[in-house]
Amino acid sequence: MAEAEKAPRRRARGGGGAARRAERSAVKFDTAKYIERNVPNFEVLDEAALQAIEANAETVLEEIGVNFADNPAALDRWRAAGASVDGERVRIPRGLARKLCETAPSQFTQHARNPEKSVVIGGNNLVLAPVYGPPFVRDAKGGRRYATLDDFQKFVKLGYMSQWLHHSGGTVCEPTDVPVTKRHLDMMLAHMTLSDKPFMGSVTEPSRARDCVEMCEILFGKEFVQDNTVMTSLININSPLTFDDVMMGALEVYAENNQACIISPFIVGGAMAPVSVAGTLTQVLAEVLAGVAYSQLIRPGAPVIFGAFVSSIDMNSGAPTFGTPEASLVTYGAGQLARRLNLPFRSAGSFCGSKLPDAQAAYETANSLNMGLLAGVNFMLHACGWLEGGLVADFEKFVMDADQLGTLHGLAKGVQADEDALALDAIREVGPGGHYLGCAHTQANFKSAFWKSELLDYKPFETWEEEGARDTYALATNRVDQLLSTYQQPPLDPAIKIALDSYVADKKASLPDAFS
Amino acid sequence: MAEAEKAPRRRARGGGGAARRAERSAVKFDTAKYIERNVPNFEVLDEAALQAIEANAETVLEEIGVNFADNPAALDRWRAAGASVDGERVRIPRGLARKLCETAPSQFTQHARNPEKSVVIGGNNLVLAPVYGPPFVRDAKGGRRYATLDDFQKFVKLGYMSQWLHHSGGTVCEPTDVPVTKRHLDMMLAHMTLSDKPFMGSVTEPSRARDCVEMCEILFGKEFVQDNTVMTSLININSPLTFDDVMMGALEVYAENNQACIISPFIVGGAMAPVSVAGTLTQVLAEVLAGVAYSQLIRPGAPVIFGAFVSSIDMNSGAPTFGTPEASLVTYGAGQLARRLNLPFRSAGSFCGSKLPDAQAAYETANSLNMGLLAGVNFMLHACGWLEGGLVADFEKFVMDADQLGTLHGLAKGVQADEDALALDAIREVGPGGHYLGCAHTQANFKSAFWKSELLDYKPFETWEEEGARDTYALATNRVDQLLSTYQQPPLDPAIKIALDSYVADKKASLPDAFS
Repeated sequence: MAEAEKAPRRRARGGGGAARRAERSAVKFDTAKYIERNVPNFEVLDEAALQAIEANAETVLEEIGVNFADNPAALDRWRAAGASVDGERVRIPRGLARKLCETAPSQFTQHARNPEKSVVIGGNNLVLAPVYGPPFVRDAKGGRRYATLDDFQKFVKLGYMSQWLHHSGGTVCEPTDVPVTKRHLDMMLAHMTLSDKPFMGSVTEPSRARDCVEMCEILFGKEFVQDNTVMTSLININSPLTFDDVMMGALEVYAENNQACIISPFIVGGAMAPVSVAGTLTQVLAEVLAGVAYSQLIRPGAPVIFGAFVSSIDMNSGAPTFGTPEASLVTYGAGQLARRLNLPFRSAGSFCGSKLPDAQAAYETANSLNMGLLAGVNFMLHACGWLEGGLVADFEKFVMDADQLGTLHGLAKGVQADEDALALDAIREVGPGGHYLGCAHTQANFKSAFWKSELLDYKPFETWEEEGARDTYALATNRVDQLLSTYQQPPLDPAIKIALDSYVADKKASLPDAFS
Repeated sequence: MAEAEKAPRRRARGGGGAARRAERSAVKFDTAKYIERNVPNFEVLDEAALQAIEANAETVLEEIGVNFADNPAALDRWRAAGASVDGERVRIPRGLARKLCETAPSQFTQHARNPEKSVVIGGNNLVLAPVYGPPFVRDAKGGRRYATLDDFQKFVKLGYMSQWLHHSGGTVCEPTDVPVTKRHLDMMLAHMTLSDKPFMGSVTEPSRARDCVEMCEILFGKEFVQDNTVMTSLININSPLTFDDVMMGALEVYAENNQACIISPFIVGGAMAPVSVAGTLTQVLAEVLAGVAYSQLIRPGAPVIFGAFVSSIDMNSGAPTFGTPEASLVTYGAGQLARRLNLPFRSAGSFCGSKLPDAQAAYETANSLNMGLLAGVNFMLHACGWLEGGLVADFEKFVMDADQLGTLHGLAKGVQADEDALALDAIREVGPGGHYLGCAHTQANFKSAFWKSELLDYKPFETWEEEGARDTYALATNRVDQLLSTYQQPPLDPAIKIALDSYVADKKASLPDAFS
């Protein structure tokens, strides 16, 4: 609660001196505020189920334990905290992990360089960020191909221009034409200069996480970064129950610097977790408890998010499947477990297994997006652009999904029931057999009454046919072109731009080239 | 509650002697039982909003009233019940309509001729029925065209073969090649002979409703029909606040015969109801109260369903829009209002505005289907096959949507949290860094653990590409062909078949031809 009360002041303070200077000359761009839910959460676990899962998660930590591989410092920290360490296996006494989690904030502000776009992660809020991690991209013109830095920059531009996207994300696609040793620098530079929304840092090496912190110190000012969270980064747990040294090394860097991390089990149900919903939730909770507890051993109070990447599996082929009911049930349940830990919750996204942005992609994605809103997700990574089980970042699907995110904003508003909304006078005015199109209440309210797609087709059949009978995919191709051709870079203090360019050039010169 | 307790016995009794005879020789076909929700309802209205809407609905009925046009008998009934009648305007004193609604059952059994496919409508149940009413059909091969009886019969076959569809529906499309005076006979015959699932009756003339009752007396036996509900039919209210004589005439026939009706406001928000959610809910409630009360004036205890067909509007073009957040909020709220009236609830469906079964269609449909499950809908008409704002019944979309209905079955199961589902032994067996594919718990449970699409593509990219890189639409075209080519008619007592054919032939000979 204290964090919640402080948040507005922090936001008013904004992104430091550099950000304030940038803001004064900023061109206004239409980005919706992060979602503040005025609807309840959908909950599928009763108290008995919650307690059973929580008790079993403690048993998992105490009896089975978790592995912290190749990380002697982590093992030392656990030993000092009271865990039993045997080789790389850490067994955590009942209640210890949950106790350690108590110092993690229930919500926190992630600052953007444009203070109007800072986000508060936690509480009733939902922050939407784009797809993360695909090595491939796809569009109608170029087909499926390895992603490049040029693709990456285009996605950052599309994200910046998307009204319903609050966050620029991280590895929107892998710029595979840049050495893996250096691409984090180019990605960070793109987020910092082509967008003014908040972003994520690199997690592929602790040293790269340090580079990201240093670039943030240039962008926001060193002092500001010490006191404030300016990155939220993705730390995947190697499910089941394994924490690798690279991811933990990145977590250590970010937590030490008060930067936020999502601690996220990566679950393909039936492969990395039991085939049952309750079994998966038990393991997810045990993993998050261990991961969040570890973050608090690094720095008590470091901001962290209870993550749950959940897909199901086709037991015939072993392929992960998306938008399925079992994944939804796990996500609804994980939301409940996160709230009982007073932690922000990350899950859901524009998940699908389809190879094209077709009806399958849209069904699966809509299933997952709706579930994410109702599950009480606070940070939704992959909220647009995900295709083919996450192997592909798709340009058309990016703008299709981003448009649908508007429906989540509308639904989250809930129902107003004041006198104007109850509209009794309108019903009186119109009466039996009339129509409401011209009545006073409609005239006063129609502009904001209904969410309207900026992409989908609402035209009569004949008009639609005359205009070429285009499907959603074709409309989306047009929209991608239209957005990219009208993109304008948000203003940035030229001195900061020079300093960032110089940092990146120097770093690149000092690093070896490697592509894997 | 009494109704709920009686339901199983009634179901065991089945669809009368004829149906029992048919069952003994029936070929087993895989149809899921109607959904019994093990998840809560999602509710968006607080107690204050509910009370405000309920109070205002009474004000609407008392002060503004409703029109019962060209129906002197209805006006007499209302006068006798204590309403004030002025011309065709009926003003209903506060509380009277709600009081009259009390005799309507909270749930009821609709019998199918195959007793295994009888459905219980109300309570925690969800019964899924196909699209209703389109004058056009569409498929990839034939494009968009006026619907024929041949199309109608194909849809009934597809509905019969759909695992997740519990109900054969009614006017799945309009057989426009048959005179409007006669087509109800052909439609009824198709539902009765090509499927063994429950179905709906005609509402386009009271005399046609009577024909449907008579055909049911042939199929189920006259005595059985007198005591039991064997049809659920759709009575639309001419919103705002108008009840036309044709629809009411059909309602009168069905209610007199103890057959079920959905009493359903037909709302395009901003046109037939206020632009606000709370205003729309007020009008919907007033309309349903008046309609259900009227059904109970005809026959106290007649089974009825609280209906709400809800779409929003594109205020620029006036086109109805689907899968939008405002329509979802109205539906969630209407579910709450229906439950407070102890009435079964009908809403949602495979709604979309798209001209093709593309991504737009799938996003909008998935938004609406998910909302329908969570809103506590008990009878979902239009659950598959709807296209282009309801103008088109689409063959490919029918099988695409019908497949997605499986996700609702999976989600409704909720979470089991017994010892087997908690799977602690599986977590012990696998341990950190292992995988669950071969463990004992997975082996014992994998067959039923995950819902699996029978349509969507889960293959690796390379396989998918080799097989022609088909999108969902192409896969659905194949599935339609495959289903129709393997269709087998469910067995029916030959004497009944002869009697039905004879009834239809005689009726047709006695009726004039007319196409509008």
